[in-house]
Parts: sequence; structure tokens; C-alpha cells
Amino acid sequence: GAGADNDLYINQAIVFIEDAIQYRSINHRVDSKSLWLYRWYYSRTCQWILSLTITVILALAFIEEPSSLTVTSDVRYRLPAWNPPCGLTESIELLCFLVFAVDVSVKSYLIGWKEFWKNKWLMAYILTLIVSLADWIVSLSFFCKESVRIRRILRPFFLLQNSSMMKKTLKSINSTLPEMASVVLLLAVHLSLFTMFAMLLFARTKDNQQDKEWVVYFRNLPDSLTSLLVLLTTANNPDVMIPAYSKNRAYSIFFILFTVLGNLFLMNLLTAIIYNQFRGYLLKSVQSSLFRRRLGIRAAFEVLSSLKETPASAQQSCVSVGALLQVLQKAEMDSRCKQAIMRSLKMCSCDQLSAAQFQKLFEELDKDAIKQHPPSPEYQSHFMQKMQFAFGHPCFGYLGNVVALANIISICVVLVMDADKQPSERDDFFLGAINCFFILYYLLEMLLKILAMGLKRYLSYPSNIFDGLLTVILLILEIATFAVYGFPHPGWRPEFMGLLSLWDMVRLVNMLIVFRFLRIIPNMKFMALVVTTLLDLVKNLRAFAGILVVVFYAFAITGIMLFKGAVVPLGNTSVGPMNSWNIGPTTSMTLLKKKVPSWCSACSQAGIVYCLLYVLSVHLICRWAKIYFVAWWLISSVIWVNLFVALLLENFIHKWDRRCQRESLSGIEYQRTVELMFRDVLEEPTEEELMEKLHQHPHLQLCR
Amino acid sequence: GAGADNDLYINQAIVFIEDAIQYRSINHRVDSKSLWLYRWYYSRTCQWILSLTITVILALAFIEEPSSLTVTSDVRYRLPAWNPPCGLTESIELLCFLVFAVDVSVKSYLIGWKEFWKNKWLMAYILTLIVSLADWIVSLSFFCKESVRIRRILRPFFLLQNSSMMKKTLKSINSTLPEMASVVLLLAVHLSLFTMFAMLLFARTKDNQQDKEWVVYFRNLPDSLTSLLVLLTTANNPDVMIPAYSKNRAYSIFFILFTVLGNLFLMNLLTAIIYNQFRGYLLKSVQSSLFRRRLGIRAAFEVLSSLKETPASAQQSCVSVGALLQVLQKAEMDSRCKQAIMRSLKMCSCDQLSAAQFQKLFEELDKDAIKQHPPSPEYQSHFMQKMQFAFGHPCFGYLGNVVALANIISICVVLVMDADKQPSERDDFFLGAINCFFILYYLLEMLLKILAMGLKRYLSYPSNIFDGLLTVILLILEIATFAVYGFPHPGWRPEFMGLLSLWDMVRLVNMLIVFRFLRIIPNMKFMALVVTTLLDLVKNLRAFAGILVVVFYAFAITGIMLFKGAVVPLGNTSVGPMNSWNIGPTTSMTLLKKKVPSWCSACSQAGIVYCLLYVLSVHLICRWAKIYFVAWWLISSVIWVNLFVALLLENFIHKWDRRCQRESLSGIEYQRTVELMFRDVLEEPTEEELMEKLHQHPHLQLCR
Repeated sequence: GAGADNDLYINQAIVFIEDAIQYRSINHRVDSKSLWLYRWYYSRTCQWILSLTITVILALAFIEEPSSLTVTSDVRYRLPAWNPPCGLTESIELLCFLVFAVDVSVKSYLIGWKEFWKNKWLMAYILTLIVSLADWIVSLSFFCKESVRIRRILRPFFLLQNSSMMKKTLKSINSTLPEMASVVLLLAVHLSLFTMFAMLLFARTKDNQQDKEWVVYFRNLPDSLTSLLVLLTTANNPDVMIPAYSKNRAYSIFFILFTVLGNLFLMNLLTAIIYNQFRGYLLKSVQSSLFRRRLGIRAAFEVLSSLKETPASAQQSCVSVGALLQVLQKAEMDSRCKQAIMRSLKMCSCDQLSAAQFQKLFEELDKDAIKQHPPSPEYQSHFMQKMQFAFGHPCFGYLGNVVALANIISICVVLVMDADKQPSERDDFFLGAINCFFILYYLLEMLLKILAMGLKRYLSYPSNIFDGLLTVILLILEIATFAVYGFPHPGWRPEFMGLLSLWDMVRLVNMLIVFRFLRIIPNMKFMALVVTTLLDLVKNLRAFAGILVVVFYAFAITGIMLFKGAVVPLGNTSVGPMNSWNIGPTTSMTLLKKKVPSWCSACSQAGIVYCLLYVLSVHLICRWAKIYFVAWWLISSVIWVNLFVALLLENFIHKWDRRCQRESLSGIEYQRTVELMFRDVLEEPTEEELMEKLHQHPHLQLCR
Repeated sequence: GAGADNDLYINQAIVFIEDAIQYRSINHRVDSKSLWLYRWYYSRTCQWILSLTITVILALAFIEEPSSLTVTSDVRYRLPAWNPPCGLTESIELLCFLVFAVDVSVKSYLIGWKEFWKNKWLMAYILTLIVSLADWIVSLSFFCKESVRIRRILRPFFLLQNSSMMKKTLKSINSTLPEMASVVLLLAVHLSLFTMFAMLLFARTKDNQQDKEWVVYFRNLPDSLTSLLVLLTTANNPDVMIPAYSKNRAYSIFFILFTVLGNLFLMNLLTAIIYNQFRGYLLKSVQSSLFRRRLGIRAAFEVLSSLKETPASAQQSCVSVGALLQVLQKAEMDSRCKQAIMRSLKMCSCDQLSAAQFQKLFEELDKDAIKQHPPSPEYQSHFMQKMQFAFGHPCFGYLGNVVALANIISICVVLVMDADKQPSERDDFFLGAINCFFILYYLLEMLLKILAMGLKRYLSYPSNIFDGLLTVILLILEIATFAVYGFPHPGWRPEFMGLLSLWDMVRLVNMLIVFRFLRIIPNMKFMALVVTTLLDLVKNLRAFAGILVVVFYAFAITGIMLFKGAVVPLGNTSVGPMNSWNIGPTTSMTLLKKKVPSWCSACSQAGIVYCLLYVLSVHLICRWAKIYFVAWWLISSVIWVNLFVALLLENFIHKWDRRCQRESLSGIEYQRTVELMFRDVLEEPTEEELMEKLHQHPHLQLCR
């Protein structure tokens, strides 16, 4: 009937508007039941469960069998890690797989059969699930004793497929690959030609004293290749040059040519290529988000205009205000936006809305939320007003900064003086006394500020929250110290008591004080600009970080599988394939303690991009390790760092260009989003584009 | 009289047009004598003498007293360097100073008294000369025994002031300094806060086994600061982290935070700032060159139009063709351009030229020179024509590339096989035989190509010149080998004879063959693009390279002065302030042999940007050395590398954008200049701008 139809239209409009708010695609089924399923699937609870499942399945690696999650990473000292009984991690995994199965079926159903066949990500998702399940069954049938677990390498895929941003970024990276491959090929040609040159130049001579270069770095083809590859990472520079240079200065020309061509030109060419590819990347992605939003709103308009209440006689389609109000009440959106739209709907006296008016109403979504701080309290007493003026003044804040600086300097002085003292000689009285004074001042400052601004206004500034929180923590620590160890006095050197020693307490307090010093940042203009740029960057980098996690995870798991058991404690050094470690060119003593697997997990779990450079420099003889580390260097260090630089350049240059513009508005604080940064550059989609896209919708049949 | 006036005008026009061609400023004196002096000063001979003088005075450092120009850099083995007698270098210096004195007086005279006072560079030039002369007198009066020679540090200034490009670049760098200083300040804050954190975190404990981190890296404030500074250069990564990490994995968070914030964010911020500043740099400089050219031509037009022959009745000023022809014949310019202008002057039937026509004539200067290869010879015989087709075909070139590749591979195979053989066991027969065969093929290829293309056409391709030259050298070497050592036969192991041993000859031949393999570059599209970009870059980088030379020179001289005698041979290690070298964290053995002064000169004279990173990592204890190396790292590595990256990005992105455009024209070879690259983006100066500038000319009084 017409009523049911109307309900359907209203529901469709609600979902489309929610799609627009979340920048989602509207290409999903639009019948009543599917709409209910869709809203359920995208409800906060469901998405939260999905994220939790992904986190859990990724985190499993930390407790699974060859895990290295122990306090120390040193194989000589560490206790055997906890080994979960067979079936525990497996049953958790099965639960996760079930959630993923539900996820993939709901997703496939919602986009419809036809679209499903076009969607390679969904098919890969199903394939991954099937392979993982098969591997899981194999695992259980071997009672968890099997050596290779393919499903562990496949796990990061679940993270990848869940984020549309990541998929888009990956596509973008993918389109740069041919050019990157050309540069990498060029690097390879460069490397091989120079290797041949080096082998001819530093050949074995009859005089054994003279060919140090040959012995250490250019003994044979793999050695020479490795030496020069490591030189490309600059890790063995200038070690590799020293023997030849001390023989004849002219040899340095070879190394200089190699470094300049390889490092300065070819490596930076990679940066240029990647930057060139990503120059429009942010703008493009924001532009497509805008298109999705406009499309969602237009789709909502179209379905609402087919409601039966609309007078059929109207020349152009329009929407009644009542229907829109109904939709707005049911749609989930930011309450501030909802109120603003309601308000402007009431102010507009007309009964029917055209498409343009409809779009205009929802422009509220694109606007900055102007952050208003609550007013200061108004005091009656003249004295209080004066107090308020004095302590609400910026100068009081500057005074606080100066005091914090003084505190830092005093800590620094004490540290320098105590540097060479034995722990037993150390006298904690001085530091305890001055810290006590400074913390009292911080408390006073906080209280006076609250008095001047009122609690609400005080808490509306993030810098005050940071400040206040640290002050409270410091106060609690200080009170705890005094409660346990008594008040400081000269020669104050109490015994160890309770959870932490006095010395640890004092160190913790000092670290917090150093951390609290960061409150000066918003007071320095250039620093504030840099910090806001970096924060923006972090927002935009989420997709990249996700891909990085995927790559790190895959590398870590591969590394653990490849090098399992390759490292043994220092006692018996000659066991396993890693006994060639001690051939390394610079030293052997310190390097023996470095272990590939713990390094893999350290590098990978942690995220140091450069840590490989040094590991490579010790000339892993083991072939696999070499290939593994070169791949790791290329992907994590070269390509990812260049991607990062490209994004940073993009972001920073945008921000920099707009700096002057912003300074004029400095009175008002905006809650800025990425979308807003580009607002003046974005193009509004035309009505024709929107309608064409709407008519291509696989499930929605529009009347006109 | 009128004739003398006319001569003056003609001479002025000649000089203005030469100015326009060379992109020089026209703000110089314009009376007859000054014009003669001006043309003499800018004649090739004079400029060549000036360049030679600058080269000579800079090169003096290689033979002056604490010079290190010996074959080996190892203090243990090297012979005492040649010490020039007192007065030899000094008299050369005096000659140079005289040339500079003439240069500065001519320059000052030519720009005129008024302009001289505004020109800070000229004043600094005079000041430098005076200080240098004073120092020279002091030096002589001490009979060359004085320890400090200020004039040696001042020398690079002479290079700097002679290039207008360098001065412009320096100005550009200068305007970036405030922002760079902010980032460096930020880095300093970052470093100092993290140092305090580190000192609190890795404090001395009662258990001596546990505080390795403290002992090695964070013993006191300077140590901690150095450790973290070196971590910022990534030279001691992950060494510095290992002890703490093996105690507790959580400590790695500190190092990761430091590296990510410092290296990824702050260091790349520097790149972003410098790139942002230099984005328009090339375009701007090309634009100002264009303005100078148009201004010169316009000035020539204006002076020619004041010639008495011109009919005074003409409404607008114009120039007679005869006068222009007279000017053209006397002006020094590219003969191709001259002919083209003459030709179009004859084709234009009119007698008088307007300003627009005049400018249009000289647009020939801006045009690409289309390079036309001479035609191939036309053979009568049918057989010869077939030969010509076969060997003129690109496939023959590809075959040559394949043969060159085969040669490379064969050398590579022999190298791998011979890698572990003693020199006495080595049999040179195989390599000798195949190289003989390959060189014969190369000779044949060259002769056939000359046959097919004719000698002139063959030589008109640079790749052929490269190819042919190397082939001829290879042939000569091979003939010399056979003449000295006879033809190769199995067991061919002749004794050492003549200048080079057979083994050295073979190595030289092999190196040349590897080098010849570079001829494949133009055959690979992407490689060709990259290589042309790099060549363009080298052209644009001349100014930067000059500034780099200035900085390197100053650092090298300072280093030599600071660390003179600080290094002693290995026998008595504990002499001098450098005995603290062996405290270094990783090794002491190899590092003891590294010497600051030879390093300084190696780094500086040679140009390796990264060589410091490792030197820093050995924890120089000597304060001065530390400060010196940090300054060196900041300037040469951080700032200069970032400048280079910025320019590379700029150049590459321009080139990349225009690639599609160029591909359509690929049939024609252009001799491209920087100016032409930007031709579509450049703005032509308006007539008003030109005339306004002309009226501001300090010496030229225009009638109108």
C-alpha cells in the first residue's frame, strides 16, 4: 500500500542521509529488510565487534608458539615464554573466523549478487577465509605440531579489507609501482655495473699487505654486491672506503661517484616519483568524499520526492518539510548539526523544498564547528574581580611557563652534579625539597586559574586539561612519597619501602615534570604550526599506518618462521647456520648478541625504519637472511619513508600556503577536519553528474 | 658631431644586444671609452684569465704547508709531503691579488660611483682583498712561520662573488634561514627534552650488571646529548638501543618515539620547508633572465632609434634596417642566430622597424636549435645500398648492445671463477682471447656503421662518439698488449714487462668494456628520461655546487687549522688530545686509524656528504671536534641534501609533466636549455615595465 511505500521511502532517505554523513557509498540494496540489516551492520556495536575481532586475531601472534613476548629480548637471560595449550588460540581463531564469515556474507548480500562478482576485494576475502579455515583444520589434526602456518601470514588481510581508505591508498601505491620499478631497475643496473668495476679495481694482488680492500669487502661477487648495497644504505660508509683510501687517495673517486649517483640522484628520484604521484592524492580523495556526500543527500531528496503526499502537479520535484523533519528525527547524526538544520528548516517559511534548497540545508554538515568557551564567572566583590583580572591574564600563563623552565633547569643541574656519584652517595634532599616547592606552585597556579576562569571554562582548553591532570598526578605522587618516606631533610636517604624506591619515585616525578613542560608549545607560534601540521598528518596517515602495520606484521611472521631457532645463547656460538655472524667486518663481540628473529620482531613490532641498516651492515652470510633484509629495507625504509615524505610535503605545503589566511581568523578556534582544509579548492559536483550516478544505482529505481 | 654620436649609438646598441644575449644587466656606463672597457672586460680572454686566477688561488691549498696531497692518506706509511719554499705560494698569491684588484676596480668603475655604494658585494670584495693583503704581509714578515692564516678561509669568497647565479642562490637560501632556524630550534628542544628523559630513565643503579646503557651511552649530560644526536643521524642505530632493549623490551618505546619524532617528522619538515621555498625558484630566475634579455634588446632599439638618420617625422620611434645590419655584423653572437636574423631581416621588405618588429627579430635567440644530422652517403652500387640498409638499421645497434652485454657477462663469469685463485695461479688466456674477439667485433661494428652512415653523420650522434672513442682506445690497448706480451695461448702467464703488467692491462680493458656498456642508456626510454633529467639538473645545480665548494673549502681549511698535528702514527697512540679515540662504543682497533684531519680533507675535498655520520658515531671526546662535526653535519648533510632534494623534485616534476608533450615531437632532437623548459609558463614583460626600467638607467639618458 501507499503507507508501506511511504515508510520504505522514509527509511531509504534516512539511510541515504546517514551514508552522506559517513561518506559511504549508496550502492547497496534498498528494500525494507536490507535497510534494517544495513543499519544494523553499520551500527556502532557491530563495527566495534568487527574491529575488536581484527585486533584479537592480529594480537594472537604475541602469545602463539614461537612468540617472543618476554620482558628481556636476550636469549641468555630470558625465561621460556608462556606456551598456550593446544586448542586455546585455535578456538579463539575459530571464533574470529565465524565473525568474519558473518561479515563477508552480510557485505556480499548488501551489495547484491551482480556487484559481488565485480568486487575483487570481497572474493579475496572469501578465499582468505577458506584458506585460513583449511589451514586451521590441518593445524588441529596435527595437534598444533605442524611447522608452517600459512594463515598467520594471511591475517593482516583482515585489517586491510576492513578499511576503504586503506584500499584506496593501496590502489594509489599500486599505480606508482611501474615507475618505482623502473627506478629500482636503474638502481640494480647501477649496482651491478659498479660491482664489476669494484671487482676489477680491487682485485687480489701478489702483495698481501696491499689488498685489505679485497679481503674484507670485495672477495667475490656476492660479497662485493653486498658491500655496495650496504654502501647504498650508507650504513658502512666510510668503513668500506678506508682501506682503499689509505692506499691511494684516488680510490675515493670510485666511492664518491657511487654514492653521489646512487644515494643523491637515484634514491631521491624515488622521492620525486612518489611525490609526483601523490601530489593530488589528498585533494582527490577529499573530492570523492564530497561527491559521495552530495550523492547521498541527492538520493535522499529523490526518494522523498516520490512520496505520495507530494502534489503531482508541481513542475519540478520537491520534498515536503514534514517528511524531512520525520527523516531528520530518525537519522543518527551529530546533535549540533541536527539542531542547526531543524532551526533553518523552521526559519524557511515555505512548505516545499526544491533540490537546491534541500542540498543547502545539509551544507551545515560541511561547516566548522565553532568552539565556544563557556564564560568566566562574574564576581561581585571588587577584590575578586581584580584577582580574576590578574590570574586570567596571559602573563600569568607565561609566568607559569617560566617557573616550569626553572624547574627543568634545576633538575638538569642536579642530574649533572649527580652524574658520577654512586647511588649510595646520592642525597635526594635537594631535589625532593625543590620539587615539593615547584609542585605546590603548580597546584596554586591551577587553583588560581580555576578561580579566575571557572571550572567549566578552565576545562574547555585542552592545554589546561593536560596541565591540570599532570599537576594532580604529581601531587598524588608527592603525597605518597611523604606518606611512605617522611618529609625530606638533609641526609635524607631512606631504605627501600613499598612498591617503588624513593629514587624511582623521584625519577618518575621528574619525568612527569619534563613532560609537563610541553605545555609551552601552544605559546610559540611556529611550534604550534608545526605541531598542528603533524597532528593533521597523523589523521591523514591512518591509512598509511594501517598498510605499514600490514607489511610489518607479514614481515615479522615470515621472519619468525624463517629464522626460528637460528639463534642460540652465547655459550655455544658455533651451533646453527648463524655461526657465520662473527665474520662481520667491524666487530664480532657485540654483534654476536644480535639475533635475527628478535630483530625481526623488534623492527616489525616496533616500527623503527632504520634499524635494518645496521643489521645489514654486519654482512649476513646466510642467503635467505640477506634476501629477506634487502626486501625489508626496500619496502619499509625506502618506499615507505618516501611515501611519508610525499605526504608530509603535500600536507605541509597546503598548510603553509594557508597560514596567512588563518592568522586573520585567529580569534576563533575551529575544529578542523581534512575535508575543511581543502574547502576553497574543491569542486561541487554538477546536478547532471549526480543524476547520472543515481540512475546507475543497481538497486534503486527512480520514477523519473 | 653627429657622426661621433652615431658611432656611440651603434656601439651602445652592440653592447646592449650582447648584454641581452648573455642575460647581463645593462646598468653600466655607456660612454665610448667605458663601452670599450666593458667589451674588453667581458671578452672571453679576460673572463678566462679571471676564472683561471680563481682556480689557481683555490688550488694553492693543495700544495701549501699543512697540505695532505700525498698518495696514501695513512700517516704511518705516507712520505712527508713536498713543502714549497717560503715565498713561492706567496708570490703566486700576490699575482692573484693583483688580478682581483684590477677586476674590482674595473667592475666598480663600470657600474659607476653611485651604484657602487649600493653594491654590498663589491664592498665586501674590496674588504676581503684588503684583509688578505694585510695577512699576506704579516705572513711574509714572519717568514711563513705564522700559525694562523686568515686569508686562506677568505679565499672561497673570490669564487662566490664572481657568479651572479651563486649570489642569487645565496640570497634565496638566506631568505629560508629564519624558517630553517625555527626547525633547528625545534630539533634542539626535542633533543634536550629527550636527553633529560633518557638520563632519568637510564640512571645508574646499584646493580652494575644492569646499567650497561648508562655506562656506555648516558653517563653524563654531554654523553647523553651526543648519543641522541648521533641517533638523529641514525649512525648508531640500533646500537644505542640494544642494552636497554635486552633488559626490557619496553625501553624501545623511548627510542622509537625519539626516532619517529626526530627523524621522520622534524627532519622531513626541513625538506618540506626548503622545498616550499624553492618551488618557484627556477621559474623566477628564468623569468628574470628573460626580463634582462628583453630589456637589453629594447635598450638597443631605443638607442638606435635616436640615430640621426631616422626621419624625425615618424609618429612612433623606429629603427632603420641598415643600422641594425651594421650592429649585427659587429656584435658577437652565435653564428646560427646571426644568420637567421639576417635572413628574416632581408625577407622583411620594409625599411624601418618598429619596436615590436625589432623584438620579434631577436626571438630567434630564444628558439631551440634544431639539430640536423648530415645525410647518409648515397651509394650507386646495389650491393652497397643493401649493406647501407642492413647496417644503418636500428637492429644492428641492438645487436651491438646484445654483444656488449655478452661481453660483460663473460667478464663477470671469469671474475667469479677467478675470485679465490691466487694471482700466480690465474690464467689470463681465456679472458684475453674473448676480449680480443669482442674488440674485433666492436671495431667491425664501428667501421660498418661509418660505411652505412658516412663519417660526418656517424660523428653527429654523441652516442657514436662515445662508442667509437672507447673502441679506438680498446684497440690501442689490445695492440699494445700483444706487442709487449705476444698473442694469448693456454698457460699464457708472462712476466711483468713495461709500464703495466699484463693483468693490469686486462683489468683496464675490462673496465673500459664495462664503461662502454653505458651506450645502452639511450635505448631505454625511462632511463633516457632519468638521465636527461639528471643532466638538466647538473646544469641547474652549478650555482649550488659552487656554494657547496665554498662551504667545503672553508670547512676543510678550518679543519686543517683546528686539528693540525692531532693525529700521530699508530706506534705511539697515547700522544696528543686524540688518545680518547679508543673509548668509542663499537670498536677501537679500526677506528684508531681514522684521523680527523685526513677525514676533514677527505670529506671536504671529495664531497661525500654522509662520511661524517660514521665519524660522529665514534664519540669524539674532544669538544672542538664535536662542535666542528655537528656544524658540518648540519650544513653539508642536512641543509645541502635537502636543497638538493628540493631542486630535484622541482626539476623532475616539471620534466615529468611535459613528458607526454615531448613524446609527440620525438622525431626532432632539440638542444634544450633551462630557459626553454619553462617557455610556456613564462610571462613576457610589458612595454611599460621595460620603459620604466630603461628610464631608471643610471647612465643612459633617453631623448624621450
